[in-house]
Amino acid sequence: MKRKVNMAVIGTGRIGSVHTRNLVRAIHEANVVAVCDIRLEVAQAVADELGIDRVVKDYHELLEDKDIEALLIATNTDTHAFIVKDAALAGKQIFCEKPLALQLADIDEVMQIVEDTGVKLQVGYNRRFDKSLQRVHQVVASGEIGRPCILHITNRDPEPPSLEYARTSGGMFLDMSIHDFDMVRYQIGEVEEIYAIGNVLVTPYLKDIGDVDVDIITLKFTNGAIGTIDNSRQCVYGYDQRLEVFCSLGTAMAGNEFENTGVMGDRTGFHSAKVPYSFIERYADCYITEVRQFVQCVRDDKPVSPTGYDSRASVLLGMAAWESFRQNRPICMQEFTGK
Amino acid sequence: MKRKVNMAVIGTGRIGSVHTRNLVRAIHEANVVAVCDIRLEVAQAVADELGIDRVVKDYHELLEDKDIEALLIATNTDTHAFIVKDAALAGKQIFCEKPLALQLADIDEVMQIVEDTGVKLQVGYNRRFDKSLQRVHQVVASGEIGRPCILHITNRDPEPPSLEYARTSGGMFLDMSIHDFDMVRYQIGEVEEIYAIGNVLVTPYLKDIGDVDVDIITLKFTNGAIGTIDNSRQCVYGYDQRLEVFCSLGTAMAGNEFENTGVMGDRTGFHSAKVPYSFIERYADCYITEVRQFVQCVRDDKPVSPTGYDSRASVLLGMAAWESFRQNRPICMQEFTGK
Amino acid sequence: MKRKVNMAVIGTGRIGSVHTRNLVRAIHEANVVAVCDIRLEVAQAVADELGIDRVVKDYHELLEDKDIEALLIATNTDTHAFIVKDAALAGKQIFCEKPLALQLADIDEVMQIVEDTGVKLQVGYNRRFDKSLQRVHQVVASGEIGRPCILHITNRDPEPPSLEYARTSGGMFLDMSIHDFDMVRYQIGEVEEIYAIGNVLVTPYLKDIGDVDVDIITLKFTNGAIGTIDNSRQCVYGYDQRLEVFCSLGTAMAGNEFENTGVMGDRTGFHSAKVPYSFIERYADCYITEVRQFVQCVRDDKPVSPTGYDSRASVLLGMAAWESFRQNRPICMQEFTGK
Amino acid sequence: MKRKVNMAVIGTGRIGSVHTRNLVRAIHEANVVAVCDIRLEVAQAVADELGIDRVVKDYHELLEDKDIEALLIATNTDTHAFIVKDAALAGKQIFCEKPLALQLADIDEVMQIVEDTGVKLQVGYNRRFDKSLQRVHQVVASGEIGRPCILHITNRDPEPPSLEYARTSGGMFLDMSIHDFDMVRYQIGEVEEIYAIGNVLVTPYLKDIGDVDVDIITLKFTNGAIGTIDNSRQCVYGYDQRLEVFCSLGTAMAGNEFENTGVMGDRTGFHSAKVPYSFIERYADCYITEVRQFVQCVRDDKPVSPTGYDSRASVLLGMAAWESFRQNRPICMQEFTGK
Repeated sequence: MKRKVNMAVIGTGRIGSVHTRNLVRAIHEANVVAVCDIRLEVAQAVADELGIDRVVKDYHELLEDKDIEALLIATNTDTHAFIVKDAALAGKQIFCEKPLALQLADIDEVMQIVEDTGVKLQVGYNRRFDKSLQRVHQVVASGEIGRPCILHITNRDPEPPSLEYARTSGGMFLDMSIHDFDMVRYQIGEVEEIYAIGNVLVTPYLKDIGDVDVDIITLKFTNGAIGTIDNSRQCVYGYDQRLEVFCSLGTAMAGNEFENTGVMGDRTGFHSAKVPYSFIERYADCYITEVRQFVQCVRDDKPVSPTGYDSRASVLLGMAAWESFRQNRPICMQEFTGK
Repeated sequence: MKRKVNMAVIGTGRIGSVHTRNLVRAIHEANVVAVCDIRLEVAQAVADELGIDRVVKDYHELLEDKDIEALLIATNTDTHAFIVKDAALAGKQIFCEKPLALQLADIDEVMQIVEDTGVKLQVGYNRRFDKSLQRVHQVVASGEIGRPCILHITNRDPEPPSLEYARTSGGMFLDMSIHDFDMVRYQIGEVEEIYAIGNVLVTPYLKDIGDVDVDIITLKFTNGAIGTIDNSRQCVYGYDQRLEVFCSLGTAMAGNEFENTGVMGDRTGFHSAKVPYSFIERYADCYITEVRQFVQCVRDDKPVSPTGYDSRASVLLGMAAWESFRQNRPICMQEFTGK
Repeated sequence: MKRKVNMAVIGTGRIGSVHTRNLVRAIHEANVVAVCDIRLEVAQAVADELGIDRVVKDYHELLEDKDIEALLIATNTDTHAFIVKDAALAGKQIFCEKPLALQLADIDEVMQIVEDTGVKLQVGYNRRFDKSLQRVHQVVASGEIGRPCILHITNRDPEPPSLEYARTSGGMFLDMSIHDFDMVRYQIGEVEEIYAIGNVLVTPYLKDIGDVDVDIITLKFTNGAIGTIDNSRQCVYGYDQRLEVFCSLGTAMAGNEFENTGVMGDRTGFHSAKVPYSFIERYADCYITEVRQFVQCVRDDKPVSPTGYDSRASVLLGMAAWESFRQNRPICMQEFTGK
Repeated sequence: MKRKVNMAVIGTGRIGSVHTRNLVRAIHEANVVAVCDIRLEVAQAVADELGIDRVVKDYHELLEDKDIEALLIATNTDTHAFIVKDAALAGKQIFCEKPLALQLADIDEVMQIVEDTGVKLQVGYNRRFDKSLQRVHQVVASGEIGRPCILHITNRDPEPPSLEYARTSGGMFLDMSIHDFDMVRYQIGEVEEIYAIGNVLVTPYLKDIGDVDVDIITLKFTNGAIGTIDNSRQCVYGYDQRLEVFCSLGTAMAGNEFENTGVMGDRTGFHSAKVPYSFIERYADCYITEVRQFVQCVRDDKPVSPTGYDSRASVLLGMAAWESFRQNRPICMQEFTGK
């Protein structure tokens, strides 16, 4: 039997507690030896639920513990960069929720340290681990349906965020579309040019802070393909997640999952269930699969993916999208990066 | 250019007028030279609509006309036998709506004359010409998914018939299931044993005449496969038409068509259209294809199908179903035929 | 019984012969008294097939015939403008295939004459008559799912056009996207800004004439909604036709139709049929419905729709799309129109 | 916070280990204090995996332990009866896998003791807890689509059992259809008459022991509805699970789930994924939900369901099905029970 990887989780809020439960219950390659949250009672509750012995408030304590090989970081976005740096300098293997940071300079500094220290850093772009999106990737990458021509992503959240959240999130192109920017790179490759439009149609309070609640992003890829992403912050029938890669000799699509398979027919037609309400439900399996891959790579000393460079690339696309939106013109990524 | 076949239509009621329109508008291999109905005004209306010159009340006039090569008979079921006999004796090629008759003796007498005179006789089992049911047939017959194991047919009419119709129709196993009896023979082959149950659940007036409004027919086939048919005389979401042939290495299914492809999502889920209301709409293409095949076979002197023997076989199954229902026991077809 | 409208068809090529067949076989409100084509033998063949007595080569003959009330014009695009003008001046009611012309000046001149003479002019934007697209329109227009937020149209042709056709067609944004420009106006309303990208990915010969074979058009509407159109000149699984209008309280989608409803399951999964190959098949019913509406409006003296103004609007959008593509920047329609 | 229920699991083979994992990882209302298996090493492996301290070979040890309030019994079917009896006499609350026994006398003896001792006994008819089947139940039970008329269940296993298993399983009507017998009672109610047919089409070795590998069971219900169940021991595209309750004013269906939502289109049509391979995957959530309900009922002292009476009823239907199959005639349940 292979050895288990000793891990600690830093940040046990919504997504951090999901990761901790998965590590304890489903990822048998890992031992969770400690959990950490600046809200000590939040960490304690998770530890109690899962029978984890050690609970700490200050993550530095974990860095000093030589028995801890790997860290899963699920704190607020604005803390990712410095915790990852500290963790890398302490020689820990790192799984960090996306994005690494919202400033390129921060990401670059982190990546330099990660490179210098040689630790592994996997970033939590969970959708790459969805079986349906992987199926599309596999079919397209195989070349069996020709070359990619047109990409479509539909990504719609069930409910708008609070004003408080939106204020610091980086706005729609960075807090929401960023998942799609990673997905387009996973499915098609690098983006050459980006054009972003958006509007405020259902949440007037977002207007005041310059954010939008619907957007469409148009993309040209370096391989000649073209594509769009559409996002909405409100979707009353659930968390709408669809993707199509139309190719020269066919198409590959990933559709929605539904709450159940029931169909009722009556005088007015046929009626079926909504799509799952939240990303936690929809991508439940991905959160397990991505972390299991990370733990196995740590255990077997293999390279991880997606990396900090992937996170940098999607943040860059988010920033270019905002630039395009504000200037109302397409932005060439080469020009944007060169700045 | 190949010659056209001169035809006349006898019986221009609901289905007869559909056939006449199809012959005139869509089946360019035929000339409709006359229409006939004992209700002369009914025939006249169809003739006026379609620009047909000759209208007769008595079909015998048509038999004497040497310019008429073929007849399409769409009169009431109880008149089929004697009209077909007369037509055969007059040397006409015959397309007759199903069933040929509800009494075996009548069918046998007709078949004998048809055989003696050597005329063609195609019977209107239109569903054999449906592209989806043909696709199932083709896949199953090819053997690519192994041997047939389990058959299911769902056949549900939108609205119950009038008491008047049901009184003389032969009852549910003969007026409705008979289509399915032909379909099972088309898809699987001959029936060895049949067991029929039914009940009156929505149309109390059918109880008084010993008829049913829902039924399930269980079948054993001579090739070892087993199957069921379910029928309902009422179906509020339209004319429900589904079939599955489950095989040892796969399954082949023909699903419903829908009134449109619209899907609406809202807070309660997703909503889509009903299935087409009637057999006229659902099988519109089949009525054209079956008659076009007949006309081409007449023109090119090729054998037609399905024949009177197919009609006899499905009537026999309908009679066995009634016998099974009344005795509440499975009926062996060999024993039943032997009687 | 209401009177029939005497009509003649000018141009009996592919789409013209479809219209003529529909008029004769399915639109009983009309009498087709003549057909016209500069290729006389083409017109003669259609007349022979359908039993139409009069065949002419020069459409001016028809203009002088006082018995002809209405004309259906299905000639080459570059002849629409002058034939419509002549027909209007002759006082004929006019159904003309889209687009009226590819030059705004031509359209404007036609429209002026149509207005001056007071004749009816319906333009053949057939997709407005599709039952699924109408269902979406009805749901969205009712307001029951809130306000329109995001529109998507997927419109993909099965096979690329010949170089010969593409040379004079106006290019992809005018020969193909133009249907979608009419559809977005039907579903959402007027466009405020348009941005078009495209590429040549499967038909190198189109590159030489400056045309594209895939495109994506991004739209801002005056009501605040945003949307995209995607087009491809090649689609190996058939004529892909989908539309979604995502609204603040739901979504309304029109999906593809399929060649049959057969589904086969085997060790590798489930397999179903392609979508219909061509627009002639997919929109067969629309060609009947649009012309029936025209004939009824002529008979009952009611206003027709879509009109020449609709045709002008979609041509304008096509021209703006080309401008946007060439300049690689969004084009404001008000600014574009003002030029 | 409510108290936790101390439990032990007896039988930690395939389904027993699933239950144990669920209890430890997902059912936080329970403490698993011990596991038991006559193959001690099997129990030990599960205990090691899940961190359970106590492992025993002889279940009697558990009965004497006053700290254990409830038992989950997942041993071989032929041991259920005596273990349940012992457990009931020891005053334990009991969750037992289905069926309680294959002999009515055994079930009756067990039920008498359960009644006398007043312990709770829930039997593991897991499908009652499936969200899609529950959705159908809810719609039908509400009466909103009228009265039930026709029921269909399709239940097909991916691969045939070994000869060894089939020898002692009670045969297809008892080892496989029994799930469906419980489901028909859940959806419709009590059965009045049953007729069963079957054949050996893919597994010749089952013929020698008088078993079948495909069957169809036809049912009359006491409320007038009729229905069928079809079963196959082999299904190459996965574990096929479908149900329909057709009612007088509509229909309610539960369809298959699929391995992923990917759809690929190419020149031959569209291709999608298989259904999940096994009941363990397909009904994974049900195994959690049914046991969670049991634990909550124990904790809160509420009645459990389905009970031993439900198990008796489905065993009785399985026996009647075998009787019907052997006699090749419908069996009236009242007559059968009276014997």
